[in-house]
Amino acid sequence: MSNAERPDGWAITSPRSDRVRMIASLSGRSARRKLGMFRAEGPQAVRSLLEHRAADVRELYLTDAGTAANPDLLALAAAAGRRIRRIPEDVLRAMVRSGNDAPAGATGSGADGPVSPQGVLALAAMPEPGLDDVLEGLPHGPLTLLVLHEVQDPGNVGTLIRAADASGAAAVIATAGTADVWAPKTVRSAAGSLFHLPVVTGIDPERLLPALAEHSISALATSGYAAQDLYDAELPERSAWLLGNEGHGLPDAVLQAADLAVRIPLAGSAESLNVAIAATVCLFETMRRRGGGAAR
Amino acid sequence: MSNAERPDGWAITSPRSDRVRMIASLSGRSARRKLGMFRAEGPQAVRSLLEHRAADVRELYLTDAGTAANPDLLALAAAAGRRIRRIPEDVLRAMVRSGNDAPAGATGSGADGPVSPQGVLALAAMPEPGLDDVLEGLPHGPLTLLVLHEVQDPGNVGTLIRAADASGAAAVIATAGTADVWAPKTVRSAAGSLFHLPVVTGIDPERLLPALAEHSISALATSGYAAQDLYDAELPERSAWLLGNEGHGLPDAVLQAADLAVRIPLAGSAESLNVAIAATVCLFETMRRRGGGAAR
Repeated sequence: MSNAERPDGWAITSPRSDRVRMIASLSGRSARRKLGMFRAEGPQAVRSLLEHRAADVRELYLTDAGTAANPDLLALAAAAGRRIRRIPEDVLRAMVRSGNDAPAGATGSGADGPVSPQGVLALAAMPEPGLDDVLEGLPHGPLTLLVLHEVQDPGNVGTLIRAADASGAAAVIATAGTADVWAPKTVRSAAGSLFHLPVVTGIDPERLLPALAEHSISALATSGYAAQDLYDAELPERSAWLLGNEGHGLPDAVLQAADLAVRIPLAGSAESLNVAIAATVCLFETMRRRGGGAAR
Repeated sequence: MSNAERPDGWAITSPRSDRVRMIASLSGRSARRKLGMFRAEGPQAVRSLLEHRAADVRELYLTDAGTAANPDLLALAAAAGRRIRRIPEDVLRAMVRSGNDAPAGATGSGADGPVSPQGVLALAAMPEPGLDDVLEGLPHGPLTLLVLHEVQDPGNVGTLIRAADASGAAAVIATAGTADVWAPKTVRSAAGSLFHLPVVTGIDPERLLPALAEHSISALATSGYAAQDLYDAELPERSAWLLGNEGHGLPDAVLQAADLAVRIPLAGSAESLNVAIAATVCLFETMRRRGGGAAR
């Protein structure tokens, strides 16, 4: 553990240093694009990053409390050859404060705004796989993809990626109008799943459907007006579930270009489903039919 | 339309009036308890409130833009005998600004913090049905309940209530440690479902399981360590799905007191599921086995 080399040394002491400001600026999409890095916050995300994408890790910051609570991270960092930078609590807090955020803790509800990274933070390069490379690399035979089209809420995007991972999807593809997957809130909601499977971003939907067809992958959409019920429909062996914007769903052009549209049956008085809930119903029903829970 | 009686009159003109401050204070749980009212914001929530719980509506506020975009609300309000109070845009914005919130728009990410009510707001009395009354009122035969135990995030609580409604659950029961269901963010995430089915709050879990048993309702839990897979398990005809805290899941005591625990198969590298995703998988699998989508 290289940490032991400087047992009393802080990597950064001032919450107002340039380095801290740079790290805080990564709350914004433009800074992430310019610097080519994103922040992973909290032990779960950083553990998953070290386990699955260690080569992408650029800097690793822990407070003493974060180190004490997560001894396994030291071993993981050592195994990956990544140095741990020890920082005081106020420096860590300043790192997760974004430029136009209110100060941490100022928002009314606990789940909104900056969330404590529990003493653990990493900077990492954004893996940006190309669509063609990902499609070429897919296994033969049955598989499921999740496509996000203009999903707006960063928390929803993260939850969708987590649900795709848990249901065994082979990749997630986000169109150009979808919220940035490397936003802090998305990384947090994805709970490590962003590092488990390829996530392709910025794709033009007009280019996507032909590319899927070339790889014999059927595009499946959900619609309240579809004639077939999800539970009665025959699902193709190789499918991509297309999920749309929270307010408007999928645009008509995309819906009409899909190979199959199904209706998720709604039993109560609910008029519609949250996008992450709709995706979960489709993804897990697909998994259930394939025998459920088999390794990818 | 009583609105027509004073075509040029504003019900409130100053964003700093006492009435506006009172309405803004309803962002906080203690003010809601003291005043016995909550805010429903946006056309979808208010429409559902007028359709399903018109008797609970105390005050109804619309901006001119809100009225123009939602002409059906005028008819619904008239049918329910509820007067529409016309207010300017800045008064509406002040009504949804909570005491300890940052000003609307100050938070970095669009989905956090105050969200525009799109010209429509209502105050309503909180329906607070008792556990015994709700259990007594349940139909005979197959049914599903959702129990939330110490779920912390207001957005998750709303999404869970919406998923329960959509899957045909007969009621939602929240234990004392769960986030308040009448918080603005919860009401927003529930997208009307809070008004579609009975929601019982503040329940002691030690009292709950015996009460469920008395009504022949089995308590079902999910656990990563359960021997039985959800998709293989035989599910009782009358069941209550128990979902726990985002970080810790269900406490051991509750897990052990449950009649059946099942494992949701996870296919990818994901270690766990978001609580709303886990509930959705269980609730919709239960609905699927009952033939899906039948009216409650």
